[in-house]
Amino acid sequence: MSARHGVWLLGARGSVATTAITGAAALDAGLAPATGLVTERPEFDGAGLPEVGALVFGGHDVVETPVALRANRLVDGGAIPPGLPAAVADVLARIESNLRPGISWHEARAQPRAALDRAVADLREFRERNGLASGVVINLSSTEPPVEPHPAHGDPDQLRAALDRGLGVLPPSSLYALAAIEAGFGFVEFTPSTGPTLPALTKLARAAGVPLAGRDGKTGETLLKAALAPAFASRALRVRSWAGTNLLGGGDGETLADPVRASAKLESKGRCLEEILGYSVEAPVRIENVRDLGEWKTAWDHIAFEGFLGVRMKMQFTWEGCDSTLAAPLVIDLARLSALAIARGEGGILPSLAFFFKDPAGTNEHALERQHLMLLEWVRSGVRV
Amino acid sequence: MSARHGVWLLGARGSVATTAITGAAALDAGLAPATGLVTERPEFDGAGLPEVGALVFGGHDVVETPVALRANRLVDGGAIPPGLPAAVADVLARIESNLRPGISWHEARAQPRAALDRAVADLREFRERNGLASGVVINLSSTEPPVEPHPAHGDPDQLRAALDRGLGVLPPSSLYALAAIEAGFGFVEFTPSTGPTLPALTKLARAAGVPLAGRDGKTGETLLKAALAPAFASRALRVRSWAGTNLLGGGDGETLADPVRASAKLESKGRCLEEILGYSVEAPVRIENVRDLGEWKTAWDHIAFEGFLGVRMKMQFTWEGCDSTLAAPLVIDLARLSALAIARGEGGILPSLAFFFKDPAGTNEHALERQHLMLLEWVRSGVRV
Amino acid sequence: MSARHGVWLLGARGSVATTAITGAAALDAGLAPATGLVTERPEFDGAGLPEVGALVFGGHDVVETPVALRANRLVDGGAIPPGLPAAVADVLARIESNLRPGISWHEARAQPRAALDRAVADLREFRERNGLASGVVINLSSTEPPVEPHPAHGDPDQLRAALDRGLGVLPPSSLYALAAIEAGFGFVEFTPSTGPTLPALTKLARAAGVPLAGRDGKTGETLLKAALAPAFASRALRVRSWAGTNLLGGGDGETLADPVRASAKLESKGRCLEEILGYSVEAPVRIENVRDLGEWKTAWDHIAFEGFLGVRMKMQFTWEGCDSTLAAPLVIDLARLSALAIARGEGGILPSLAFFFKDPAGTNEHALERQHLMLLEWVRSGVRV
Amino acid sequence: MSARHGVWLLGARGSVATTAITGAAALDAGLAPATGLVTERPEFDGAGLPEVGALVFGGHDVVETPVALRANRLVDGGAIPPGLPAAVADVLARIESNLRPGISWHEARAQPRAALDRAVADLREFRERNGLASGVVINLSSTEPPVEPHPAHGDPDQLRAALDRGLGVLPPSSLYALAAIEAGFGFVEFTPSTGPTLPALTKLARAAGVPLAGRDGKTGETLLKAALAPAFASRALRVRSWAGTNLLGGGDGETLADPVRASAKLESKGRCLEEILGYSVEAPVRIENVRDLGEWKTAWDHIAFEGFLGVRMKMQFTWEGCDSTLAAPLVIDLARLSALAIARGEGGILPSLAFFFKDPAGTNEHALERQHLMLLEWVRSGVRV
Repeated sequence: MSARHGVWLLGARGSVATTAITGAAALDAGLAPATGLVTERPEFDGAGLPEVGALVFGGHDVVETPVALRANRLVDGGAIPPGLPAAVADVLARIESNLRPGISWHEARAQPRAALDRAVADLREFRERNGLASGVVINLSSTEPPVEPHPAHGDPDQLRAALDRGLGVLPPSSLYALAAIEAGFGFVEFTPSTGPTLPALTKLARAAGVPLAGRDGKTGETLLKAALAPAFASRALRVRSWAGTNLLGGGDGETLADPVRASAKLESKGRCLEEILGYSVEAPVRIENVRDLGEWKTAWDHIAFEGFLGVRMKMQFTWEGCDSTLAAPLVIDLARLSALAIARGEGGILPSLAFFFKDPAGTNEHALERQHLMLLEWVRSGVRV
Repeated sequence: MSARHGVWLLGARGSVATTAITGAAALDAGLAPATGLVTERPEFDGAGLPEVGALVFGGHDVVETPVALRANRLVDGGAIPPGLPAAVADVLARIESNLRPGISWHEARAQPRAALDRAVADLREFRERNGLASGVVINLSSTEPPVEPHPAHGDPDQLRAALDRGLGVLPPSSLYALAAIEAGFGFVEFTPSTGPTLPALTKLARAAGVPLAGRDGKTGETLLKAALAPAFASRALRVRSWAGTNLLGGGDGETLADPVRASAKLESKGRCLEEILGYSVEAPVRIENVRDLGEWKTAWDHIAFEGFLGVRMKMQFTWEGCDSTLAAPLVIDLARLSALAIARGEGGILPSLAFFFKDPAGTNEHALERQHLMLLEWVRSGVRV
Repeated sequence: MSARHGVWLLGARGSVATTAITGAAALDAGLAPATGLVTERPEFDGAGLPEVGALVFGGHDVVETPVALRANRLVDGGAIPPGLPAAVADVLARIESNLRPGISWHEARAQPRAALDRAVADLREFRERNGLASGVVINLSSTEPPVEPHPAHGDPDQLRAALDRGLGVLPPSSLYALAAIEAGFGFVEFTPSTGPTLPALTKLARAAGVPLAGRDGKTGETLLKAALAPAFASRALRVRSWAGTNLLGGGDGETLADPVRASAKLESKGRCLEEILGYSVEAPVRIENVRDLGEWKTAWDHIAFEGFLGVRMKMQFTWEGCDSTLAAPLVIDLARLSALAIARGEGGILPSLAFFFKDPAGTNEHALERQHLMLLEWVRSGVRV
Repeated sequence: MSARHGVWLLGARGSVATTAITGAAALDAGLAPATGLVTERPEFDGAGLPEVGALVFGGHDVVETPVALRANRLVDGGAIPPGLPAAVADVLARIESNLRPGISWHEARAQPRAALDRAVADLREFRERNGLASGVVINLSSTEPPVEPHPAHGDPDQLRAALDRGLGVLPPSSLYALAAIEAGFGFVEFTPSTGPTLPALTKLARAAGVPLAGRDGKTGETLLKAALAPAFASRALRVRSWAGTNLLGGGDGETLADPVRASAKLESKGRCLEEILGYSVEAPVRIENVRDLGEWKTAWDHIAFEGFLGVRMKMQFTWEGCDSTLAAPLVIDLARLSALAIARGEGGILPSLAFFFKDPAGTNEHALERQHLMLLEWVRSGVRV
């Protein structure tokens, strides 16, 4: 397949985006193994996914640090192996020309129509200049506070009218989602922000035949909940409490130490247990900012459960990971799977991608292996034998 | 369903058996919730399983401590709630009359035919005296050392001939399995012992239309491996090493501190990872006897893995459980599911019960949720709509 | 020594007080070992401490649940062994007659002088009715919010004048401390509340020859910090961050989930590291209310440190304890040691009791073993050879 | 102080030695902070210790890999920061000229006298060629199996006679210790090998005025036992069991997976608890070889203890460290402290260095902070005010 596919990253100069961009270049150059890439597993052979090398990266950001500089900082932080940024320096330099200034929160409030038009223009220009067969926007920017409900959120016409009247009813993530739909791009909400989850946007995407996926990439504590909670459920062990603490360094920790922003994240983390277990559980989740941890995070979960005859038992785990390392390959996976959905003409929400998200859109399935089987089935459904 | 079903326990006076017997009586009397019982989950409704109260317990043991006394010790050890043994004292007393002396290792070696005949007679008498519609033997006795290979293990006729000639080619667990087959009982190997796993016995069971299941109940570290390893596999995270330490108290710890006996257990614990991950992993497993822990066990697992671009990360967990609490409900589940298999006329190995075992017979599926789906499918396959 | 010594507990019907009272009765009756009692260690032989049986308990509380009922609930919660409350029922009944209604926060604000006078009268009546040689008040009640500074806190005369004018400048814990001093009792502040820590009260205690000790009993995470941090310090290992999470059940968890009340506790927990290490450390501490844990608490600490050539390493620990079990014996220890101080005529703050407190009064020594040596030296200083 | 002091390392091309040599050079060049170096703490100011830059390294080894190459491998393993070996390349090259072939086990058995003479000659030549004011031999080579007792071990004359007769009664570590004594060097046994612990050698050292110290550097699990066990002891909390598991990578793991060699290590690890607690504890310790861990080790300890009224509680910890990082600075500390002892004319065993060892010679004090106070007192004892 020689067609090229665009991947427009919101927060394109951030840790996750930089790792995804540098990693994709390294994979394409044969400098790194495919570890962590779900779509490189044998089950995906022959499914018609674009090659990693066929992905063309671009994006928005509100900061201006060059991606190559960011990549070197991630080497110091342990997220990228030494030497890799230098080895793919030309690719990183070329990507710089595809990066545009992002929409600020202020702009989204004050001049929504202008911001939207600019974003649409950026996307179209990205497609044309790079001769792209298809494209997807993936939101990797900082978590937004939850959006205040507005009647225009439910209806495409009212929404457009509101924006034309200069009403700032959409947060940046949702403005970008609308821009993606208008430009014919898919949209993946990889953060807990609002993005494309408003009914008006879902309707528009369906009408436009553009795929949507989300929400909030599942890379740590929730990944483990999704793997472990089904074992408690299927073995009829009653979970009494499941307390989680997440120590996060770097920017993510700082953003999420803000209780308003954290609320979106905590909400998306909370639903998983209840859906899998089928009953309500005392399950506090804390996010703690420990700057010293840098790009790394450590989660500790304490699970008290009850077995036969009511006897109380206990499980604990810790998960120590590099946030960008865990998230970046999923970004590449989602770009490839979105290209597949576009090629198949599937518009609207893709529930079969639940495997990747804390708060999956279009399904209540939270059990990881079942989500995995859903994904495989969807991918194989289009394979000609 | 008013028919009664026999459950003949090998090691009937041990911790697991005593907990299962006491617990079943408590459930039947409405004194305990169904926590830990897989077959009481809503998915099993209407599948035609016998009620817990329809199970009649009996068994063999080489020791003579009354079950009621054992139950009181398990109260001290935290495996049975205070007051429960007294509340079901009459049931426990009644079960005493169904208990017989077990086959010792020495007897199996020196007088295999006599031992076999006695076991068969015990089973038949148990069925007749209690008016049982069906019956299953479940091995809960101490782990045996691995059996030495012998040509007679492969062929039913040679096996019978060897026993007739007084050759001690079968360990007690396999003698019991043969007795079960001859008496028309199912057999569940809940320990890592040889039991019914010899080809000669599998053939005989198939011919006799008697179900077999095993091997080695999955209640702790391996349960978690089976739940977690699929997450590493499906996310393409490369497990580099997975080191496990199991602190066991009580008799189990002592038996398994013997390296020869432990070898069977460690082998059955080892296969799981490789089957799920698809590659070989450095995965040492230790069993440590800590008498102080009594009926309890604590496992600590240290998992080193690699993600995107080869970055190394880590997971650790501890699992603190009461061994009997975890195992006993599975014994009841397996008794009910065996009765269902007999009612359906299914003879030979039941691979659909892999969900319960560390070393599942008849299948290479080790991923817990997939095993769960196999079980549900099998159970529902016979449900008339 | 046949003299009797009074122990007046604030929060006398709470978990810690009930465990201390029941436990002291059990020890006196030979029904329990001396585990957890520092002052029963051989180093304290011959120091002239009163026997545990010579302690007479009384106290204040704002609730009215009988101590015997509380003790039975603590049996359910795992803090007191089954059977013990019944075995010492007569002692528990007798103690009821020594319990009086406590001073509420409202009363302390609105009628401080009347509240003070009542508390002094209660203490005097307690001493006379029981023929006590000495007495100590120990505060075990719920943590108060930090007190607002007031000029009267610095000077005894101004303080009395303010109270006479009906100014509610003292929180209940400090009113009780003043009552203790006026009645000639010692005072131990076992919570993070203000208690006797105001300069005016310290001066009065010194003048009255009454001993004071505090603050905030050290029973879990901070105990371990005090034991471990000196190892990092003496080995010149640089602690980079020390993040602590405390899961607390029951009433304590609820009180401390209130950020205002928690602030006092977190402040007293924070000082320890800095004093021992000699530099400032990023050391967030969280308290999480997990009702399911009941009387139990689990702390998880994550310590990132740096060694030779700046290489980063890590330690983690969990501490799972029953709060009352850990605190109650220290209450008995502090009662005995206070009686010793009174017998020796030592008034004012006792820095040698730092071993027991998170926020030790009168010293900056936080290293546990050094505090232990201070305690032993003080105790032995009065031993005639 | 411009005098130079020799440090003769046995196993001079191993991980710990290479890290110590590279690190000392880096410290001297101002390229690394003094983290991990006990003797750089302020308490040691003015004690007359030689500067790190005044230490001259040499040594024996049975392998021939250049130290510079070893240092680069340790960069890959995470024990030495990138760039450091290159920055001190000239120092590493110079040290090569001070390295000699080591005594093999075979040579010690077959030709003890020749081996001894060669070692003595090496040490004398090292001193003269480098113009050293004093010298110490530090054993960092692989752990030996325990030595078989022999009558000659108790008496200097018999020992020399045995060696003259060609009897291989001494393992290499003890031959080296004898060589050190004969050459007037101090000797530090940093491994669990026999080294200078035989009575005959102790007597000779005392007579020769040569200091000895050991045994088995305390860098991980035992360091924490020495810090934590005193807290359980002083708080009268009864330790019921203390189970430890050590996952070791690299060469150390392989050596210690050999049960015979491990026995020495496990014995030296075991004594600590009993000495501190004053009673015998069920305390199994395991060493597990996990090659994947490379230069790193992770210990997990599970501590079950009993508090007031016999209530059972629990502590667990993990310690994740780089073995060489933890050990290397102690090698430098011990070299400096040995030089001080020689300058003060102290011969024989130095019990005041117990702080550094799992199995301290000349004292039963195992509590870390008390050992620390012993060390400080000894160091200050010679400081002129």
